[in-house]
Amino acid sequence: MKTMGLRHLYLINPRHFPDPQASAMAAGADDVLACAVVCTSIDQALEGVVLTVGMTARLRDISNEVLMPREAMPQVLQQAALQPVALLFGTEMSGLTNEEVSRAQMLVNIPTDPDFSSLNLAAAVQVMSYELSVAAQSYQPVAQTLQPAAHEQVEGFLSHLEKTLHEIGFFTTQNPARMMQRLRRLYARARLEADEINILRGILSVTTEYNARLKARYKQDSDV
Amino acid sequence: MKTMGLRHLYLINPRHFPDPQASAMAAGADDVLACAVVCTSIDQALEGVVLTVGMTARLRDISNEVLMPREAMPQVLQQAALQPVALLFGTEMSGLTNEEVSRAQMLVNIPTDPDFSSLNLAAAVQVMSYELSVAAQSYQPVAQTLQPAAHEQVEGFLSHLEKTLHEIGFFTTQNPARMMQRLRRLYARARLEADEINILRGILSVTTEYNARLKARYKQDSDV
Repeated sequence: MKTMGLRHLYLINPRHFPDPQASAMAAGADDVLACAVVCTSIDQALEGVVLTVGMTARLRDISNEVLMPREAMPQVLQQAALQPVALLFGTEMSGLTNEEVSRAQMLVNIPTDPDFSSLNLAAAVQVMSYELSVAAQSYQPVAQTLQPAAHEQVEGFLSHLEKTLHEIGFFTTQNPARMMQRLRRLYARARLEADEINILRGILSVTTEYNARLKARYKQDSDV
Repeated sequence: MKTMGLRHLYLINPRHFPDPQASAMAAGADDVLACAVVCTSIDQALEGVVLTVGMTARLRDISNEVLMPREAMPQVLQQAALQPVALLFGTEMSGLTNEEVSRAQMLVNIPTDPDFSSLNLAAAVQVMSYELSVAAQSYQPVAQTLQPAAHEQVEGFLSHLEKTLHEIGFFTTQNPARMMQRLRRLYARARLEADEINILRGILSVTTEYNARLKARYKQDSDV
């Protein structure tokens, strides 16, 4: 990543860190390791990030478009010029979990030979940072109208939404986890702005209050 | 390389081969290692190859154009559709020597951060095979008029040329090694065809014969 001009490494629950073997292998890029930020959760790592690019081995996703690195990078750069973006990689053994992928607003698949598609982590990081670096060389800023909200604002809204859906009894006939995944993806595609999150959370608050008023009235009626 | 659809690995004087560590790290691509061809010289490895792409850390070369991977790959593919081509990588520690680079008809530099440009071997191979694979996806064959000669034919001509230049005393006022590098580069750019090599070698033969005849005559004259 350092050869391609990237400096900011975030590690989520690394098994060993600092690790003498990693430092030895970093030869010359040990400053990147030394400055790496160790996080205990994906949400902590993505705080302040407005666009998360998740890697996927799949060519299609239920409701998110899967891009090739070359298609994705110009968009990533446009966003990175204004606010923090993140490339999100999974573990060497199993990549990103579905839950982790759901934190991303953009999915990228590195095309591989269908007969042998197990690109290792270092190779995937190399290809992605190379593509970003090449795209940066022909970067032209485009006036942007969208001001996407930070990761934690989106997560705050999604928690609020889930809690509200529980309260209003929406999940009694639905699989909550699956439904939340669908909703997550929908809002990931939308790239919510802070104002819009305020509006949506306003709707949720009113919904809960309405629900609370209804409950109170039923209680009153049944008490009568 | 296997993830990007490449199968043919040639190793020139590997320090250890087969190597249990390499086999272990190849996880799933051990067939590529098992089929690797071990060579004792660069010329042996390049036998039959008509286009050799050498990697260089330099952005410019004395007399060869240095391309970026994305510029090079369409040309490499056009050639590969007809005759064998090779991507030539140097050692982890020091890359290709000048002499090794001079075996290439095309030079490629992977753009890196100027402050930290030491891309390791695996990373360079990954980037190059990725670029080749991406280019292959939009490959359109172009009718080709050039039929470049195989590596060993070009080397045969260059040896003949060097020998001849010695014989005719051309090197008495020139640095032979430096001059041969220049000539190598000139002919690398030309991408000699087999017919052309025959013509050039014909000229060399006649030159030597002419020289021999001259010598013989001088000898005769001085004997008189």
